Amino acid sequence: MTELIMKCSKAREAAQKLIGVPSWMKDKALEAIADALVERTDEIIAANKVDLENAEANGVRKAMLDRLSLDPERIKGIAEGVRQVRDLNDPIGEVINMWTRPNGLQIGKKRVPMGVIAIIYEARPNVTVDAAALCLKTSNVSILRGGKEAIRSNTTLMKIMQDAAYSVGIPEGSLNIIEDTSRETATQLMKMNGYVDMLIPRGGKGLIKSVVENATVPVVETAAGNCHVYVDGDADLDMALDIVMNAKVQRPSVCNAAETLLIDKAVADKFVPVVFKALQEKGVEIRACEECKKYYDKDVADAAEEDWETEYNDYILAVKIVDGLDEAIKHINKYNTKHSEAIVTENYTKSQRFLNEIDAAAVYVNASTRFTDGFEFGFGAEIGISTQKMHARGPMGLEALTSIKYIILGNGQIRG
Amino acid sequence: MTELIMKCSKAREAAQKLIGVPSWMKDKALEAIADALVERTDEIIAANKVDLENAEANGVRKAMLDRLSLDPERIKGIAEGVRQVRDLNDPIGEVINMWTRPNGLQIGKKRVPMGVIAIIYEARPNVTVDAAALCLKTSNVSILRGGKEAIRSNTTLMKIMQDAAYSVGIPEGSLNIIEDTSRETATQLMKMNGYVDMLIPRGGKGLIKSVVENATVPVVETAAGNCHVYVDGDADLDMALDIVMNAKVQRPSVCNAAETLLIDKAVADKFVPVVFKALQEKGVEIRACEECKKYYDKDVADAAEEDWETEYNDYILAVKIVDGLDEAIKHINKYNTKHSEAIVTENYTKSQRFLNEIDAAAVYVNASTRFTDGFEFGFGAEIGISTQKMHARGPMGLEALTSIKYIILGNGQIRG
Repeated sequence: MTELIMKCSKAREAAQKLIGVPSWMKDKALEAIADALVERTDEIIAANKVDLENAEANGVRKAMLDRLSLDPERIKGIAEGVRQVRDLNDPIGEVINMWTRPNGLQIGKKRVPMGVIAIIYEARPNVTVDAAALCLKTSNVSILRGGKEAIRSNTTLMKIMQDAAYSVGIPEGSLNIIEDTSRETATQLMKMNGYVDMLIPRGGKGLIKSVVENATVPVVETAAGNCHVYVDGDADLDMALDIVMNAKVQRPSVCNAAETLLIDKAVADKFVPVVFKALQEKGVEIRACEECKKYYDKDVADAAEEDWETEYNDYILAVKIVDGLDEAIKHINKYNTKHSEAIVTENYTKSQRFLNEIDAAAVYVNASTRFTDGFEFGFGAEIGISTQKMHARGPMGLEALTSIKYIILGNGQIRG
Repeated sequence: MTELIMKCSKAREAAQKLIGVPSWMKDKALEAIADALVERTDEIIAANKVDLENAEANGVRKAMLDRLSLDPERIKGIAEGVRQVRDLNDPIGEVINMWTRPNGLQIGKKRVPMGVIAIIYEARPNVTVDAAALCLKTSNVSILRGGKEAIRSNTTLMKIMQDAAYSVGIPEGSLNIIEDTSRETATQLMKMNGYVDMLIPRGGKGLIKSVVENATVPVVETAAGNCHVYVDGDADLDMALDIVMNAKVQRPSVCNAAETLLIDKAVADKFVPVVFKALQEKGVEIRACEECKKYYDKDVADAAEEDWETEYNDYILAVKIVDGLDEAIKHINKYNTKHSEAIVTENYTKSQRFLNEIDAAAVYVNASTRFTDGFEFGFGAEIGISTQKMHARGPMGLEALTSIKYIILGNGQIRG
């Protein structure tokens, strides 16, 4: 407990010093970090091996073991990611706009670091490097608290990053990891008001929920994606088939994959048999409404109420026939998690209504939901996808890690 | 409890409908509200009279009675404020920027309403109208929870606003007041995740603290202002005197008034006697460091550690002599509440260092801290002054009540 307060207190001091660090030094530090990760690959792998052995002994499931596991190739990839962050434009210091008031005061809105950013995540060592690099690039101090299964990998990665960054002049205390992976310490971190300026949880539902319920510091919620594709009566059905298949099967485990397909009843007879066959050929389990089964019922399960709410992250798709755009919009706004939603249509007015009326971070016309991603959007990086409306919404690039400050230049103005 | 959930649930539905309401209708509703407030002045005053009588009987202190009290002139002023909000540009619908990706996807960042905004405040009926008008202008549903002392005034004002707005077509449920002023209901409102998109507390320390500690919905903290003026060794001392006096005495009760004066020791002998005399002539109580008293000690109290931390909101000023800019910056960053800070200097390098190194929402060179205000900044309105770094910092105008949504226009793009 006292250790956490001391660490946060040093972090606060480092944040103040980081403000004065020029862009070239941050980039030099990122370069040094990338080099050191590759050079010290053996150390990382040795630490990771211990984590993996413990995890296996504790019966951790295979998917998690895969995410936890590091090899030289993956480490090279992680280092490459750091170099990509180095190459991005530094957003800090930009004066977004500046204006002059009638009394002669010049007021400018300047982009500044957030200060101290805490990130709570699961057993994914790549997040340790990724998050630290993005924070450093934006002059933010990072306090990382990863899953206990990856603790040896994470502390080793952090030590390597600290050595590299501090050796080129980055203030000590700028990169931090919480070594105590107890729940109590995590909960305490969520309440470090005055020390932590922003907390980003990255992980599954349980983690997000715990953070939202316990945190008293400002949080950006990065949550689940119950995403929909709506195939409208005026859709190009070939395009619709491509988009549905891509949104569902190109990578089902991620948050921007589709979980429910809505089909306008006007094209149900033509589209249902074609799309169901294609989905089944790719091994997708279909859970459909009664109406669907009139058109194709081979190996099609019945959808229950909970299917409309579920983010499967798997080769499963819920399907419902709807009575046109109104019902589609209503269904989506009722069940979605405000992440990514797509309509396929050639009708102009309906495309506009969908864009306006759907409440989500990203709303698509005639494209796959899978594009909701900082890299695909052209931000060059991503720390997560926000599903809240405050501060940042959708893919969070470097700018989402910044705040602003008003700078006011006067020549003696006083208020009358 | 169930009543709150029902109200929030209806608010959510109204938020969806408000998205389709055009700007002209919102302006018409604001016009109707302003007219109705003036027309129905008698009703408002009758309700207010009951509140005032109860408050007096309960021994409420005079300053609060004054803020609670309404008369025809004040009601006219409140209505005028609504007309000013009507005249502002509607920020909703603006596409902030739009770009095309190599694959032909067009991605636009569009300004949308936050959705449902809850505001918890004290016994100030003017906030009821002000907050409702700003939310309506930005297509947000408002849920207001004011202090119990003003409940009759608030419900009457709300009824008048609802009648006026709904009569011109604003969806029912867009304007709400919580009539149950118990603490339990307020706490429950702070936890209405999924219903409330943003919660803004407006009031004193206790209220803010309670919201920060209890809320699980996203909060914008509008907090205290422990503001400083630093008179540098290179200051124009006439200008410095004007700025110090304005920052302290022009309106001591507000958050952007100065609470501590820091004086560079290089000019202490010249400046201390002049400024102390001027302050005392205006009835300001001085609490100064030991060093100060060498230059002027008539009726000057000793400053204690807690004086550096205190927002007096009164005719009291803490004063400290510092050893130049470094100590000034260190003192301010240690004790300030990240609100508004000013340096008075003719030295270019020192002005730049102060602007860069002070951590606050508004940092001034050669101007009074009293300008931190949405109207003075040219925003035309203000819902509060944020002292957190997330989402909005400093004076919050209409834009602070908006979120964004990515709209993505494709022609069949799928992810490879």
